[in-house]
Amino acid sequence: MAQEIERKFLVDTVKLAKLTGGKEIRQGFIPTSELTVVRVRISGDDAWLTIKGKNEGITRSEFEYVIPKLDAIDMLNELCLEPQVMKNRYCVEYCGYTWEIDVFLGDNKGLIVAEVELEHADDEITLPEWVTQEVTDDPKYYNVNLVRHPYKNWN
Amino acid sequence: MAQEIERKFLVDTVKLAKLTGGKEIRQGFIPTSELTVVRVRISGDDAWLTIKGKNEGITRSEFEYVIPKLDAIDMLNELCLEPQVMKNRYCVEYCGYTWEIDVFLGDNKGLIVAEVELEHADDEITLPEWVTQEVTDDPKYYNVNLVRHPYKNWN
Repeated sequence: MAQEIERKFLVDTVKLAKLTGGKEIRQGFIPTSELTVVRVRISGDDAWLTIKGKNEGITRSEFEYVIPKLDAIDMLNELCLEPQVMKNRYCVEYCGYTWEIDVFLGDNKGLIVAEVELEHADDEITLPEWVTQEVTDDPKYYNVNLVRHPYKNWN
Repeated sequence: MAQEIERKFLVDTVKLAKLTGGKEIRQGFIPTSELTVVRVRISGDDAWLTIKGKNEGITRSEFEYVIPKLDAIDMLNELCLEPQVMKNRYCVEYCGYTWEIDVFLGDNKGLIVAEVELEHADDEITLPEWVTQEVTDDPKYYNVNLVRHPYKNWN
């Protein structure tokens, strides 16, 4: 079984170099219980169906499958919660790790988070100077929760 | 988008010839809202992940993907509702259609249903003499509902 081990941080955009070469991501979530996430994602010509288990610390099980883009479009339009989550993703290499910086759009415009995927939950990483508060454990930053409680409605 | 158009009937086992050549199916469901079904199925060495939309009459959208059997085992054990649905499936040809006869096991032992998949919702079919009541529209016969309300608890 694949595992996703990930830490998530807010970003100080003043300290961040200009981002280039991003990929637009459109994703939605099939309504499930809180124990599982079923995500449909499109980026460019590619699409994926991803099942994620419950978070245990910064680790969760993850099962990801490439699917036809037309299936993904149908599932996003017919089966997923509204609104869909739109973001541009930029990859930045830093001290041996690839950081993914998500610049959200639409109802989540203004929100920018940086994620780094680890091999082991206790891997020590050097934080870039442009990350600030860690939000790994804060459910409001889970993408699935950005559908029902988008950033524009946060206080 | 694929569509599943299916009718389901109870079976008079007295009139049914002895069934042979069945395949054991083990399946479970990731807990979702009632609008969508996310099914994990194993049969022999094969496994599938299937997303089904809401029923509209006898029609529903269906997205099915072959997945590694080990993924399916992990999802069944970790993410799916208990108990899993176990059944033996037999295929019987009748008047140009393939009927799938599901003989349930475990908590649903005693339940036998026959399903026939159609190309169009208004296809006319000849019913075999061994089918009785149609239960297409009765939610208690949906496999996803046989998890929480198995046949052994029916009155």
